[in-house]
Amino acid sequence: MVKGASVELIDVTLRDGLQMEARVLPTEEKARLFEKILSYSPARVEVTSFVHPKWIPQFADAEAFLVAIAPSLSKTTSMAFVPNVRGLERLLKFNISWASCFIAVSETFNQKNVNQSIDDTLKELERVVETAKAAGVKVRIYVSTLFGCPYEGDVPPAQIAKVLEKVAGLHPDEIALSDTLGTATLPRVNAVLDASFKFFPKEKTALHVHNTYGKALMAIEVAYLRGVKMFDASLGGIGGCPYAKGASGNVALEDVVASFERSGLGTGVNFPALEKAVTTLQTDFQIKPRSHLAEIYSCGGKPYGVS
Amino acid sequence: MVKGASVELIDVTLRDGLQMEARVLPTEEKARLFEKILSYSPARVEVTSFVHPKWIPQFADAEAFLVAIAPSLSKTTSMAFVPNVRGLERLLKFNISWASCFIAVSETFNQKNVNQSIDDTLKELERVVETAKAAGVKVRIYVSTLFGCPYEGDVPPAQIAKVLEKVAGLHPDEIALSDTLGTATLPRVNAVLDASFKFFPKEKTALHVHNTYGKALMAIEVAYLRGVKMFDASLGGIGGCPYAKGASGNVALEDVVASFERSGLGTGVNFPALEKAVTTLQTDFQIKPRSHLAEIYSCGGKPYGVS
Repeated sequence: MVKGASVELIDVTLRDGLQMEARVLPTEEKARLFEKILSYSPARVEVTSFVHPKWIPQFADAEAFLVAIAPSLSKTTSMAFVPNVRGLERLLKFNISWASCFIAVSETFNQKNVNQSIDDTLKELERVVETAKAAGVKVRIYVSTLFGCPYEGDVPPAQIAKVLEKVAGLHPDEIALSDTLGTATLPRVNAVLDASFKFFPKEKTALHVHNTYGKALMAIEVAYLRGVKMFDASLGGIGGCPYAKGASGNVALEDVVASFERSGLGTGVNFPALEKAVTTLQTDFQIKPRSHLAEIYSCGGKPYGVS
Repeated sequence: MVKGASVELIDVTLRDGLQMEARVLPTEEKARLFEKILSYSPARVEVTSFVHPKWIPQFADAEAFLVAIAPSLSKTTSMAFVPNVRGLERLLKFNISWASCFIAVSETFNQKNVNQSIDDTLKELERVVETAKAAGVKVRIYVSTLFGCPYEGDVPPAQIAKVLEKVAGLHPDEIALSDTLGTATLPRVNAVLDASFKFFPKEKTALHVHNTYGKALMAIEVAYLRGVKMFDASLGGIGGCPYAKGASGNVALEDVVASFERSGLGTGVNFPALEKAVTTLQTDFQIKPRSHLAEIYSCGGKPYGVS
C-alpha cells in the first residue's frame, strides 16, 4: 500500500468499464485512456481481457493494446482478465503481474457466462492458479452473484459457503467478492463477509461492486469497517450491468475516493489528476461519466471534504 | 404504520423537492402532482411551505394550492413547513396535521437560513411548539447540518449534542435528523444517532437525507438497523442542494422503496403506482427524475427483487 493510504483502489475502467461500452475503442484511444489512468495513480490497473473476441469484440485488440502500452506498463501494478488457461497463456507473453478470473456462486449465471458448470470452472481455475504461480503471476478470482443472481434470485447461504470454501481451497492470491448486479444490502454484505472470512483471509479480500441501485458506497464503507482494504472502481463509473439495462455501472472511482477522503482516509490516488480525468472522459473519449462528482463538476461545483 | 409496513416513508416532493426547482409550477400543476403522490400512498405528505415568498417564490401560492387540494387533503396525513409562528398561523387556517420547522447545529448555516442565531431560533421554536400543540397540530423539527456544514465544515460533537438536547427539550412530536448536503458517512450516522437517542426517543426520530455523494441509502439502511422507522424522500429524487450546485437532490422515493423491498421490508407504498409516477414526472411536469430506478426504467429495464 502507498504511504499514507488506508486502502488500495483497483482501476477496472479498461476491462469491466469498457466491456459494456457499445463503441469499440481503437487501440490508440485505449492507450491514451491508460495514460490518463496512470496520471492519478491507482494501486493497480486491470488493463484488458483475454476473453475470445467472439464473446466481447471490445477486447479483440488485447495483444496490440499491450504492445502499444508496453513502455508504460511497468509504471503500475497490472492485471488482466483470463477466462481460462488458454487466456492465461496469452497473458503470460506480457509483463503483467496479476491474472484475474471468474466464477459465480449461481449455477445458471456461471453456465451462461463461461459455458460450463461451477465444478468444471473450479477444475479450470485450479489449472489457472497452478500455471500462473509457476510463471510468477498472481491470481485474483472474482466470485460473482454473491448478492443476487438475475436468473436464480438470491443464492442460498449454504451454496455461497460451499463455493467460497472451494475457491479458497484453490489458494488464489486474492478473492474479489463481486456484486455485478448492484443488489447488495447491508445485512447481505455482512453475511457474505462472514461466509468468506471463514475460509479466506480478509487481508487478501477485495470488493467489486456496481452502483445499479445506489448501494455501492454503502457496501464499500461496511466492508472497509470489517477489514477489507481493496476496492474496485472505474473512472466515471463506466461499465453498465448487462442484466439491468440502462443502469449505472461500476462504482465511480471519484465517488469512492471522495467517500474515503471525507472520512479522513487516504487512497493513494492523485485526486486533482482524477478530477481532470473525469472531466475529459466525455470530451476525449466520448464516454459520459456517471458519477455524483461528475454531476457536481458539470455545474461548476466542488465536492465537500476532499482536499 | 400501515399494516405489513416496516417503515413510514414521508414524501417531501412538494416542499423540499420543489424548493430548488427553477421553474415555479402553476398551482394547478402542483395540485395534479399532489394527486399523483396520493396515488402511491406514502405515509405522510409534506404539501407546501409557509416561508415568505420573498425567500422562495415557489411557495407564493401556498394558500391557493391548499384551497385547490382541499377536497383530497384528508386522504393522507399532511405536513407543511413553517419557518416561525407567523408561518404557523397561516398553516392553522387549514386542516393540516403536522407543522415542520427548522434549526441547524451550525451557527453560520442557521443564521443564513433563518436570519437569526440558534438561541433565538430555539426561542421561536418553543412558541411554535406551544401554539401548534394548543391547536392540536403535531410538530416536526428538522435538525440540519448534523453531517457537515458548507460554511463551518464538520460541526464539533459537543455543539451537536448541545443543540440536540435543547431541541429535545422543546418536546416536539418528531425530530428529523437532516443531511441536506448529503455528506453522511457510516461512522457519522452512528455518532449522530448515538447523540440524538440520548435526548430523544428513536420511535419519534426521522431521517432526512440527500444523495449528493451517493451515501443516502447507506444512511437510511444504517439508521433503520438502529431503530429509525421514518424516512423522507422525494419522487424522482427531485430537489437539489443549494450548496453543491448540480448535485443530486433528496434521496429518490423509488430507490428507497426498492432498497427496503429488496430486504423484504414493506413500506406501505403502492409500488406500481410509484413506478408510473416516476415515468410521468418528465412528461407531465417537465421535471427530470434523478434516481437509479428512473435510469433503469428509461431503458426498459426492471428492478431486481421488488414485487
